[in-house]
Amino acid sequence: MKHILILNGPNLNLLGKREPGIYGNDSMEQAFAILQKHFPEVQLEYYQSNVEGELINKLHEVGFTYDGIAFNAGAYTHTSVALHDAIKAISTPVVEVHISNVYQRETYRHTSLITGACVGVIGGFGMDSYRLAVEAILAL
Amino acid sequence: MKHILILNGPNLNLLGKREPGIYGNDSMEQAFAILQKHFPEVQLEYYQSNVEGELINKLHEVGFTYDGIAFNAGAYTHTSVALHDAIKAISTPVVEVHISNVYQRETYRHTSLITGACVGVIGGFGMDSYRLAVEAILAL
Amino acid sequence: MKHILILNGPNLNLLGKREPGIYGNDSMEQAFAILQKHFPEVQLEYYQSNVEGELINKLHEVGFTYDGIAFNAGAYTHTSVALHDAIKAISTPVVEVHISNVYQRETYRHTSLITGACVGVIGGFGMDSYRLAVEAILAL
Amino acid sequence: MKHILILNGPNLNLLGKREPGIYGNDSMEQAFAILQKHFPEVQLEYYQSNVEGELINKLHEVGFTYDGIAFNAGAYTHTSVALHDAIKAISTPVVEVHISNVYQRETYRHTSLITGACVGVIGGFGMDSYRLAVEAILAL
Amino acid sequence: MKHILILNGPNLNLLGKREPGIYGNDSMEQAFAILQKHFPEVQLEYYQSNVEGELINKLHEVGFTYDGIAFNAGAYTHTSVALHDAIKAISTPVVEVHISNVYQRETYRHTSLITGACVGVIGGFGMDSYRLAVEAILAL
Amino acid sequence: MKHILILNGPNLNLLGKREPGIYGNDSMEQAFAILQKHFPEVQLEYYQSNVEGELINKLHEVGFTYDGIAFNAGAYTHTSVALHDAIKAISTPVVEVHISNVYQRETYRHTSLITGACVGVIGGFGMDSYRLAVEAILAL
Amino acid sequence: MKHILILNGPNLNLLGKREPGIYGNDSMEQAFAILQKHFPEVQLEYYQSNVEGELINKLHEVGFTYDGIAFNAGAYTHTSVALHDAIKAISTPVVEVHISNVYQRETYRHTSLITGACVGVIGGFGMDSYRLAVEAILAL
Amino acid sequence: MKHILILNGPNLNLLGKREPGIYGNDSMEQAFAILQKHFPEVQLEYYQSNVEGELINKLHEVGFTYDGIAFNAGAYTHTSVALHDAIKAISTPVVEVHISNVYQRETYRHTSLITGACVGVIGGFGMDSYRLAVEAILAL
Amino acid sequence: MKHILILNGPNLNLLGKREPGIYGNDSMEQAFAILQKHFPEVQLEYYQSNVEGELINKLHEVGFTYDGIAFNAGAYTHTSVALHDAIKAISTPVVEVHISNVYQRETYRHTSLITGACVGVIGGFGMDSYRLAVEAILAL
Amino acid sequence: MKHILILNGPNLNLLGKREPGIYGNDSMEQAFAILQKHFPEVQLEYYQSNVEGELINKLHEVGFTYDGIAFNAGAYTHTSVALHDAIKAISTPVVEVHISNVYQRETYRHTSLITGACVGVIGGFGMDSYRLAVEAILAL
Amino acid sequence: MKHILILNGPNLNLLGKREPGIYGNDSMEQAFAILQKHFPEVQLEYYQSNVEGELINKLHEVGFTYDGIAFNAGAYTHTSVALHDAIKAISTPVVEVHISNVYQRETYRHTSLITGACVGVIGGFGMDSYRLAVEAILAL
Amino acid sequence: MKHILILNGPNLNLLGKREPGIYGNDSMEQAFAILQKHFPEVQLEYYQSNVEGELINKLHEVGFTYDGIAFNAGAYTHTSVALHDAIKAISTPVVEVHISNVYQRETYRHTSLITGACVGVIGGFGMDSYRLAVEAILAL
Repeated sequence: MKHILILNGPNLNLLGKREPGIYGNDSMEQAFAILQKHFPEVQLEYYQSNVEGELINKLHEVGFTYDGIAFNAGAYTHTSVALHDAIKAISTPVVEVHISNVYQRETYRHTSLITGACVGVIGGFGMDSYRLAVEAILAL
Repeated sequence: MKHILILNGPNLNLLGKREPGIYGNDSMEQAFAILQKHFPEVQLEYYQSNVEGELINKLHEVGFTYDGIAFNAGAYTHTSVALHDAIKAISTPVVEVHISNVYQRETYRHTSLITGACVGVIGGFGMDSYRLAVEAILAL
Repeated sequence: MKHILILNGPNLNLLGKREPGIYGNDSMEQAFAILQKHFPEVQLEYYQSNVEGELINKLHEVGFTYDGIAFNAGAYTHTSVALHDAIKAISTPVVEVHISNVYQRETYRHTSLITGACVGVIGGFGMDSYRLAVEAILAL
Repeated sequence: MKHILILNGPNLNLLGKREPGIYGNDSMEQAFAILQKHFPEVQLEYYQSNVEGELINKLHEVGFTYDGIAFNAGAYTHTSVALHDAIKAISTPVVEVHISNVYQRETYRHTSLITGACVGVIGGFGMDSYRLAVEAILAL
Repeated sequence: MKHILILNGPNLNLLGKREPGIYGNDSMEQAFAILQKHFPEVQLEYYQSNVEGELINKLHEVGFTYDGIAFNAGAYTHTSVALHDAIKAISTPVVEVHISNVYQRETYRHTSLITGACVGVIGGFGMDSYRLAVEAILAL
Repeated sequence: MKHILILNGPNLNLLGKREPGIYGNDSMEQAFAILQKHFPEVQLEYYQSNVEGELINKLHEVGFTYDGIAFNAGAYTHTSVALHDAIKAISTPVVEVHISNVYQRETYRHTSLITGACVGVIGGFGMDSYRLAVEAILAL
Repeated sequence: MKHILILNGPNLNLLGKREPGIYGNDSMEQAFAILQKHFPEVQLEYYQSNVEGELINKLHEVGFTYDGIAFNAGAYTHTSVALHDAIKAISTPVVEVHISNVYQRETYRHTSLITGACVGVIGGFGMDSYRLAVEAILAL
Repeated sequence: MKHILILNGPNLNLLGKREPGIYGNDSMEQAFAILQKHFPEVQLEYYQSNVEGELINKLHEVGFTYDGIAFNAGAYTHTSVALHDAIKAISTPVVEVHISNVYQRETYRHTSLITGACVGVIGGFGMDSYRLAVEAILAL
Repeated sequence: MKHILILNGPNLNLLGKREPGIYGNDSMEQAFAILQKHFPEVQLEYYQSNVEGELINKLHEVGFTYDGIAFNAGAYTHTSVALHDAIKAISTPVVEVHISNVYQRETYRHTSLITGACVGVIGGFGMDSYRLAVEAILAL
Repeated sequence: MKHILILNGPNLNLLGKREPGIYGNDSMEQAFAILQKHFPEVQLEYYQSNVEGELINKLHEVGFTYDGIAFNAGAYTHTSVALHDAIKAISTPVVEVHISNVYQRETYRHTSLITGACVGVIGGFGMDSYRLAVEAILAL
Repeated sequence: MKHILILNGPNLNLLGKREPGIYGNDSMEQAFAILQKHFPEVQLEYYQSNVEGELINKLHEVGFTYDGIAFNAGAYTHTSVALHDAIKAISTPVVEVHISNVYQRETYRHTSLITGACVGVIGGFGMDSYRLAVEAILAL
Repeated sequence: MKHILILNGPNLNLLGKREPGIYGNDSMEQAFAILQKHFPEVQLEYYQSNVEGELINKLHEVGFTYDGIAFNAGAYTHTSVALHDAIKAISTPVVEVHISNVYQRETYRHTSLITGACVGVIGGFGMDSYRLAVEAILAL
């Protein structure tokens, strides 16, 4: 059985509550339950933190044994070289995920410091971005 | 039955031949056949051109009747405002596709002029990026 | 009798259909008919292409014999050095035309690569920009 | 009867005297007389100042009652956010006018801080730019 | 009794009239009357000009004898080195005031050339920004 | 009774100890006691952390029930998109506070990534900046 | 017998007609005849297009069988990532050619997007640049 | 007898009073008296204004009849395209003068928008810069 | 006896495991044991965290009593103003340490936000950089 | 008989020794002997210096009498305005030469400060670049 | 008797020969003889070198005993931090001199790296700039 | 016995004399004597030049036989691509040395063009930086 981590960065614990025009009305908990149901043959784990360093800790923890990580780094996407290094330092493949299309938002969200360390990127499909990322990982 | 266009920009006619280290050994024809087999319930169409304006023509042609377009604009991704406008001008949703992870290549490939006009972006998964894009379109 | 070319670049074939909030509801065909009626003493010709190189071809074709060209280069305004060179290479005077006020849109639309090669620029008056350009050419 | 202000910014009082290679040999007074004759059905007014704040004062004074303003802000075009704000603050439509084609001059003249607040822009046609601006205003 | 100048720059004479979505419906006269009532123990003076140099003149006039200046330089905030120098040249402390939150507007309004010469800055609280500036001055 | 959080970011626990030429000799504890005394009718709470993610946690915790937050994000002001998002994600109004005038310091301190998400900004008045921020919140 | 393509980009069909101060009085046809005579042992072919995509098509067509390509991309030199990719995708060596010394012209002509994909560059020697490029190819 | 204007821009009326560490203790009146005495054979005139447009007016007034202008534009040196144009529009030669060495101050003072329109520049010698400028004018 | 802290930032807990081509095969634990043996007369302490704020906490904790800190801030070197401030706020001298030569890596690693707050920098000597930093501290 | 100088800048004395992957295995002495043999009808001279000023001296020495100079300025290509001026100051035509294709190397090697002063540029053909430069000079 | 060095940088040995439109027809030797005659009470010395380091050597040699140096660093003005440091390291005051008005030439000549280390700058007056510099030194 | 060169660039011959606040009171001769005494088992050599090209000559001379070079390139650190190339061209390892912490000085001193070619960098420890560099070389 495959192990895949769904990893969420800052403010994504507020999903369903925060700017629903951009992020939709579903909470991450609901979304995660649906996602697990969609992939009965995969063991999914969900982890969220607002602390950059705890995201690094989590990447280190699972990054040598899991089969993949679907990582929505939120705002740290645009500012964190440390997360780039953490992704590069581990052997588990990481897929960058975004709920919204960051190119339709402020200019400083058009730059990602982590894409270069990831296998690939999927963004703009709302909660469905996570499902596509799991699909992508399973096909690697 | 749904209609989806797989649209490829410049130099992608050389797939399987051009820099296989980056783009793999499969020709686009082989890839398209596999893709069509994968989605028997969808009518896929394939079009490629090296001419920016012909890509615009194709977007205009199908962009008010098809259910989706998976568009790999190749190098025009980084230089074409005209393609941005063409995508914005039509009503069919467009998903930006990349075979390679452009962030692992030259800096001028890190900027996309078309993402902002697309629904979303999928890149870095080799030929599988097209399959994921069709999946994404079907789920819209 | 004077000959003036109305030359339109990419996506302007969708006028009346594309983003009417910015470009209005009139098709270019309607607009052209009105324009021709407005200037019965001038022989107007209309040409549109989405292909940058075909616009260059057209400029070369009429650019040594016509009395003026009213040129709306659309998105190529902001990216095409080749059109700049084509305008500079011919002897017929060219007036740059814009339907919308490009300075009220995205920043990358604030830069024109072709103005420096044109006689002058007229923009922001909707379809009336074309009429003013013809007026300007007749007065040169 | 319509009221239109011809508003000129810094150094334009020297027209006919200053760099005739760029600005021509006509004084603004001559040009204005010709302009008024050309539009007998419109009441034109002419105002010029070298003081940025007095141009703002004039915009405020007529900007809620006149039918249009043809404004050549001269060098303030490239440096004045305050004029941008003044144009935006009033209800009378303003058309930006330039005698020369600013894109054929120094790079710092290629940027306009006021276009975004105006209806549109007309430039490069010598003194005829003013006539075209009045035409444009009458057609709004 | 303390003397404090409320100094307003370009276009602020249109308060109540100009873009009420950003600046509110109150005229500066009403606002000033309320402000004076709020601080019966302070002698407030109000001065506004659209002319950069007259604002400098006023700063020079009161800048060695008054107890403080609450200065909303409007658009000159972003373009005037001369006002920076005027504030630095005088001995009366100056507090920079903004009605709107300039960081929620165009990028060129995010830079202030005068903050470095002022004691501090207060912005984003509508007309209440002036009251807070007076409070700040009284507490210096 | 109103609830207002005084929220301090990195290194502000060293107030009174760290670079007193810039930040003064008072510890934050003394300052907070004085502040609470100044507003007997308001329930103030004080929280400080050097961890960016813990500041986000705190904003989430109180950001849907308190009446206001006076937030001095310290150095994170200039680097944290995540704090910007956290402020935008909550409903309690946040006022940005600075003790020093950041425009009199290094250039990289002149840019704030969080102002655009706050109601307004108050800076440069030493410890009195906090009092003014509470005043501003009470008047909202 | 060696096969070498002389490939010319936009506006070079106007040679002899266009800005003779920069490009000289010879037409490309005359120049090509002289060139062929100079290299009787080489089979030269001449192709010119104003369409970026047709230049790509031509590069693909001959780029796996010819012995060399002398390519003057004209204005596309400065804007086309797609031509860079096309040159990189083929196996025939390409030499970049310029008639004029682009560094003595506008700044935006100082940057070449294609040199990095070519073997080398030869520019500034008028029509003789083509002869030198053929010499260079023969010596590879 | 030669006529030379000593023209001073914003804040230079405060000389002797403003930042004496940079500008010295002498008032401009004292300096001017000494200067006139030094050049008994020249008719010197002194004019100062804080208003950019009044400086332009003065340049226009004397700029076709005087023998030279020693112009210290103060802070407008770094921001005024309009003064550049005014200097270029007149026939009297203008020498740019600075009391301090602007390169030892803030970076934004290292750029001059007016030097290119002047004959030359003299700066850094305190009040003696004016004397040297008059010397320079007399030797033209 | 002197107390010196060896402080390591994000991802340095993976030393010996992560990208050995850049960082070598030794774990930090081994390296620390060797280091302590090399300096028997110094009491060394080792601390590592992936959390920016915990690094700040540690700097505060020892920064007023220890004799020196050898600090390898890892990726935070390039992004953290908060660590700069923490180093500046304490009295213990800090030496910046890097294992690799950051100038031989990506451009965004060429900028350090913390060097300016440190005594000095030592980088590029692999694990020996730490020994040299301790040497440097002992010689201060 | 024609006189042509082969002029080499810094580090080119190490040819054959230095980074052979980029510069090849031939020493410049060998290359020069071959070159002289190739052009028996031309008198070639070879000069190399690592000192920027000595290169200027040499340009001055031969620059009014020789028939041409093939100049490989090495690293000074990217940093020396003085060499630009020296080339412009002399009457002998200078051809810029590069052994490698500088566009395939670091970004700071993509800019040449001397091309604008030269007749033309030839680069990327290894030692053959010198032969082509002599050919180019002979054809001028 | 005062000692003043006239120090000239690269290419200034060609004065009278090089681009006379910019630099005039006089050789530096003629100019120096005239200059010495003009200041019979001063002992002038003339030194020129094209080698940056020899200019530094000369500055070191006289820079602790002479009364002043009039230094025209030519092209090194725009590129040499080392000359800046040399000027700062010595105690003799240095005046920067330019023959032409560098602001009327290429943009890269608008920046001086040495002005900040000099007492002041005099430029644009042809050979007379040297006389004015000596005047300025004598008055220090 | 090991051979190590201590190589110093421009203005470092003035050590002990030049800006002692930054560089200390010791002359380089004193410092070198102490250094030699500190490493009796190493044969140290000292060389200094103000001429960039002579530094290159010295690097070439010893760069294939010595065991290491401790190189303080002074101001050339920030401007010399030629020194970068010279270091890269030789086989002896080079350690970059700085006496002061360049990040506490002007911004243009924060960039090093040579670090990327060196083994590592040591800076900010005054004269002790040289000792640490020798230590580092011995441990390579």
